[in-house]
Amino acid sequence: MKEDTTRIEAFSDGVFAIAITLLILEVRLQHVGSAGRLSTALFALWPYYFAFALSFFVILVTWMAHHQLWRLVRGTSRSVQLANGCALFYVTFIPFPTAVLAANLGGAEAETAVAFYCGTFALGSAAFNLLVEMIARSHLFRPEVDVMTVGRIRRGYRITFVFYVSATLLALVAPYVALALTIGVRLFLLSIRYQPAPVAPAAVS
Amino acid sequence: MKEDTTRIEAFSDGVFAIAITLLILEVRLQHVGSAGRLSTALFALWPYYFAFALSFFVILVTWMAHHQLWRLVRGTSRSVQLANGCALFYVTFIPFPTAVLAANLGGAEAETAVAFYCGTFALGSAAFNLLVEMIARSHLFRPEVDVMTVGRIRRGYRITFVFYVSATLLALVAPYVALALTIGVRLFLLSIRYQPAPVAPAAVS
Amino acid sequence: MKEDTTRIEAFSDGVFAIAITLLILEVRLQHVGSAGRLSTALFALWPYYFAFALSFFVILVTWMAHHQLWRLVRGTSRSVQLANGCALFYVTFIPFPTAVLAANLGGAEAETAVAFYCGTFALGSAAFNLLVEMIARSHLFRPEVDVMTVGRIRRGYRITFVFYVSATLLALVAPYVALALTIGVRLFLLSIRYQPAPVAPAAVS
Amino acid sequence: MKEDTTRIEAFSDGVFAIAITLLILEVRLQHVGSAGRLSTALFALWPYYFAFALSFFVILVTWMAHHQLWRLVRGTSRSVQLANGCALFYVTFIPFPTAVLAANLGGAEAETAVAFYCGTFALGSAAFNLLVEMIARSHLFRPEVDVMTVGRIRRGYRITFVFYVSATLLALVAPYVALALTIGVRLFLLSIRYQPAPVAPAAVS
Repeated sequence: MKEDTTRIEAFSDGVFAIAITLLILEVRLQHVGSAGRLSTALFALWPYYFAFALSFFVILVTWMAHHQLWRLVRGTSRSVQLANGCALFYVTFIPFPTAVLAANLGGAEAETAVAFYCGTFALGSAAFNLLVEMIARSHLFRPEVDVMTVGRIRRGYRITFVFYVSATLLALVAPYVALALTIGVRLFLLSIRYQPAPVAPAAVS
Repeated sequence: MKEDTTRIEAFSDGVFAIAITLLILEVRLQHVGSAGRLSTALFALWPYYFAFALSFFVILVTWMAHHQLWRLVRGTSRSVQLANGCALFYVTFIPFPTAVLAANLGGAEAETAVAFYCGTFALGSAAFNLLVEMIARSHLFRPEVDVMTVGRIRRGYRITFVFYVSATLLALVAPYVALALTIGVRLFLLSIRYQPAPVAPAAVS
Repeated sequence: MKEDTTRIEAFSDGVFAIAITLLILEVRLQHVGSAGRLSTALFALWPYYFAFALSFFVILVTWMAHHQLWRLVRGTSRSVQLANGCALFYVTFIPFPTAVLAANLGGAEAETAVAFYCGTFALGSAAFNLLVEMIARSHLFRPEVDVMTVGRIRRGYRITFVFYVSATLLALVAPYVALALTIGVRLFLLSIRYQPAPVAPAAVS
Repeated sequence: MKEDTTRIEAFSDGVFAIAITLLILEVRLQHVGSAGRLSTALFALWPYYFAFALSFFVILVTWMAHHQLWRLVRGTSRSVQLANGCALFYVTFIPFPTAVLAANLGGAEAETAVAFYCGTFALGSAAFNLLVEMIARSHLFRPEVDVMTVGRIRRGYRITFVFYVSATLLALVAPYVALALTIGVRLFLLSIRYQPAPVAPAAVS
């Protein structure tokens, strides 16, 4: 069983590592035209740097959350593998809304672009909720993860989902506030969700 | 011998993870022109989202099947490595027919595009059949995999091959029916082919 | 020491897996224009399919050779890491000459394109020769690899280098013969170089 | 704790391997136009080959330094994971300044391009300094890494940072000298920083 988790974690790690590295392919001088001075062009690319940095941070934090979650899991089932596939689907999709965001930051259609970007997070959060449900229903949390902890994890993911749906709606009227909120919530989650490696009995690791 | 399998599985996992993540590079706003409203453009990209999601699902299911198969294998030989290379060749090729499909869904040449897409599956299935044959002929299935199981696996892969060849031909007259069938067969295979990790003797894993 | 080899092999595997998967990005319908029927365009792309398949095969065989070589190595040194870096440099470069080859197969400048393609193999072979030399000089072959085996490996790599240099020169006058020879030599090497996993004493693996 | 390091190292290795392999996507014949002879075009691409080779070398050396550093670490904390994320952010960013450098080598705005390229190294060095600080402050260096060694590592990274900031400023007036210096410093670091695997007590590895 242990081995199974290793394999799915390695595959997931690969997908995370590739998605986070592909983001840079959208940062190109062509986006700002080739006329004028190079320094002007490099400054004009700021929305691309911003979107790149933001999505890099999003994928990194998602990887950390995924990592945290799987450390509590003792094996896989078909439904868990498919739910994990949905979560990875979200991760591989991120470069596209990032490109849409970069091309429209500060533009006339920022509302649509930010709503699309935040809507992607809402769908991603739905996928992570599905993954947590499938792990819980297949009784695949490690024995030392008690019922209360599982309940806390589920509630945390549900609240995050509601938050991203709200941010998506908010983006339609106040895109930059919505964007700031999705950054803020991740910084907050980062500060509460992370726990150092449990002092696990030797048999577990 | 064990070590050998680990290395080829890790390499294969890398190829699967990269191919599945590269798919997103084909989803671009440029495909629908830059005139008009952003929301209109985002909706007009539906064939690209559909093709992306479908090929993501195809590669994910193929990875799960590959994973399942290799769990039954105890080592490699040159012919097995080459046959596995053919299977990976198919996996890395998928982004191209996906792009062709996306550009022609709902268009005047959907027949050709879907036939090309399904034809790729037929070739991929041929590669997987070759892999299973090579493993069987090199006597590299684990000792606990009995003759009947090997026979069942071989038959399963042969039937899948015949199915994809039929779907390719069908696509020339009824592309959307063919497409629906290739999705259906994967959902069906997913429900029968998957088995939880065998309760293997400690020495095996 | 053992651990060190694992890490460099994993990194190398990643580079091989990515380079082999990136090749498909060069197969695009845009290369043959968008006018005319889709089926005609798909056929007209044959040089791209051919170059893709050939370079896929080249990288796969190179991975197998790299894998074979590292199984004989017990640790790394700075010079070995740098020489391995040169070998990986060659691997990551392959997509470019592949694109040049595809764009010129059957064209008026096939000589230049094939010479560039074969010249890349010559440089790659030089890098592998350097790697073998560095491993040998740092005395990092495993103890069970005797002097005669090391001598045979060195000679094999030197002959391959001379062969690729000759193929590069030949390409300037007879490109398709040179191309056929570089395919042939790989099929030949594949048949002689591969050895099944040695029945190593338990302490080694 | 050990396991935790393995996972973050594997993720980092993936990012390094992908970033180093993506560099080739910027080497394209289109950069020099399609008119004229192929051989002329292949020669005219020299700034792209040079930038590709240089950034390949930079990422390889950075990977070796990252590898060296993590071998001294016994676990992770949230702040270490975030600092490592900053270091990886730098690594994934490299393909963009590489493209800017290639497009401007020998051109009228080489100063800006080289300053941007060296400035990226300065930011990357800042990220690595942060990582070393976080590891030191979280007391996550292995017990056998004594206070003097930690002090030497910290000083080394600080000096490198000052060097890259200076090179960035120098690039504004003498770009090619600055470029030569950043290559030279890496060759120098390579010769002093590398140490063979320590003869660690069995319990450590």
